[in-house]
Amino acid sequence: MGGATVKNLHSSLERFSSGDRRALARIITLVENRSPEVPHLMGALYPKCGRARVLGVTGPPGAGKSTLTDKLIGLLRKQGRRVAVIAVDPSSPFSGGAILGDRVRMQEHFLDQGVFIRSLATRGRHGGLARATREIVHLFDAFGFDDVVVETVGVGQTELDIMRLAQTTVVVLVPEAGDTIQVMKAGLLEIADIFAVNKADRDGARRLKNELEVMLQLRPDADWQVPVLLTQATDGSGVTELLDAVCAHEELREKQPVPDEGEARLQEWYEILRDELSLRLDRALDGETLAPTAEQLRRGETDPYSAALETLANPAALVRMLGAPGEDDP
Amino acid sequence: MGGATVKNLHSSLERFSSGDRRALARIITLVENRSPEVPHLMGALYPKCGRARVLGVTGPPGAGKSTLTDKLIGLLRKQGRRVAVIAVDPSSPFSGGAILGDRVRMQEHFLDQGVFIRSLATRGRHGGLARATREIVHLFDAFGFDDVVVETVGVGQTELDIMRLAQTTVVVLVPEAGDTIQVMKAGLLEIADIFAVNKADRDGARRLKNELEVMLQLRPDADWQVPVLLTQATDGSGVTELLDAVCAHEELREKQPVPDEGEARLQEWYEILRDELSLRLDRALDGETLAPTAEQLRRGETDPYSAALETLANPAALVRMLGAPGEDDP
Repeated sequence: MGGATVKNLHSSLERFSSGDRRALARIITLVENRSPEVPHLMGALYPKCGRARVLGVTGPPGAGKSTLTDKLIGLLRKQGRRVAVIAVDPSSPFSGGAILGDRVRMQEHFLDQGVFIRSLATRGRHGGLARATREIVHLFDAFGFDDVVVETVGVGQTELDIMRLAQTTVVVLVPEAGDTIQVMKAGLLEIADIFAVNKADRDGARRLKNELEVMLQLRPDADWQVPVLLTQATDGSGVTELLDAVCAHEELREKQPVPDEGEARLQEWYEILRDELSLRLDRALDGETLAPTAEQLRRGETDPYSAALETLANPAALVRMLGAPGEDDP
Repeated sequence: MGGATVKNLHSSLERFSSGDRRALARIITLVENRSPEVPHLMGALYPKCGRARVLGVTGPPGAGKSTLTDKLIGLLRKQGRRVAVIAVDPSSPFSGGAILGDRVRMQEHFLDQGVFIRSLATRGRHGGLARATREIVHLFDAFGFDDVVVETVGVGQTELDIMRLAQTTVVVLVPEAGDTIQVMKAGLLEIADIFAVNKADRDGARRLKNELEVMLQLRPDADWQVPVLLTQATDGSGVTELLDAVCAHEELREKQPVPDEGEARLQEWYEILRDELSLRLDRALDGETLAPTAEQLRRGETDPYSAALETLANPAALVRMLGAPGEDDP
């Protein structure tokens, strides 16, 4: 790292550690932009992580996840807990929509310094989304939030990966969201610690609850009986019971043997290595390092396989391609 | 590469070049197993590629793609063309099923040296599937097959990536496969050069054909009017017309300006680099190179970010981790 960058990092970290919300927001933007500073920042903040409770809220679009999250925030604030929310919607190419959503939701908690809501703009970079979400969870955790809510639209593998970050996962469904077979196909049955059947005043809510309960008998889970709760996010009914269920699940987890933190660190390290290599390769392809090889390929003087092997077999070329950016700066 | 490995490679390539089908089968297995020799083999064979016609056949499960492919093989053999088939089914975790499928289908062409059918066992490695398929297409091409048929179950992004390998793509549908909206959602409308409405004796076949034709008016395509053909793979009706349409599409392509081969080589090189790096990282994590770092992480003496940065910033560590396997052998 260059000297100027290191100084900037230190200053950002100091402001972050003194509780400066703008410093937090700026570091989140660095994570979103996959800036080269991010691993350095995360390494520095890592020792402060591991205290926050991470709650996942997922379900199909229009199930009322955001309204439900808003009501949960209200209850948690009454308990004096500081709450951060990260909303991830990989299926939406419109970060504009997400930002508008933030603004609307922010109104209620706008002046509350104990609440921080942020949408993760995805811009089609599927691969790094789970990593970016985890890094933002780490940031909220290190910043001192007691609860971090990760909200996703639950439909694909990316969302399931993201939900593994949560200690407790609430799956929100509505009667018209389709049958329970869809729930199974989407893998939601496996990840749910709690089901919330929202918009419970509508037709079919009780039937959906019954179907889910029947289906849950297929899932053997000795310690925890997955509850299926009826909620109405708009008027807040059922939300207290939902939070009680979250706390009960959390208490159970605390009684269980501590998960292997060493293995979790190894897994995270592995994902960072993979993602960093892919990121550095992208940068190298955009830059000058590989331009001579690209030119040879364009002219047909070599083939893709021989060109790749040549670069990978040449230690100097490998380091030029993948070494840390700015590594040689004074 | 070690001396013994180089000698083995040369011998494999010699037998491959003399038309030894067992050598072809063995090299395909190397590709499936992602062996370190593969880029060397592909580099050596690359100059022999670019002659085969690559035909994609995709559609939902049960549409009759395999039976249709069998009938196409029959017609192509009558024209004296040599045909190879690669069947890819990323959604199936059972390679056993695919192999059984091969056996059943092979019966008809079992003694025919002009036909080669192979299923690609996927074993859950989604990432490298498009690369493996392309490599096997290259192998068939270099081996001297005139036609290579790539058959996939068309449902996700992986299949769409694979279909980009084909010069002409046939999308096979059946009346009961669901409505045309599903076709649009699955991206099949964009990739189809020809639609085959199979099992055309069933109810709804004509309606599906009409719906597709209406939908195709939404797709502006000045040079090529995508035909919607009615076929019945079981008795072979409509298959001659299907092959005629494939040939017409091929002729049109040959009249068009040559696509930028340089850019195609660059894209392939980039994908090989990305995939090789990910593969070598996997091997390094399984091996001894990174064991000391893993031990530090297990004991909590470092964090995942600092550990990753340290490895990536150290040129010697980077080369140990990603340099070619066996590079130092005599």
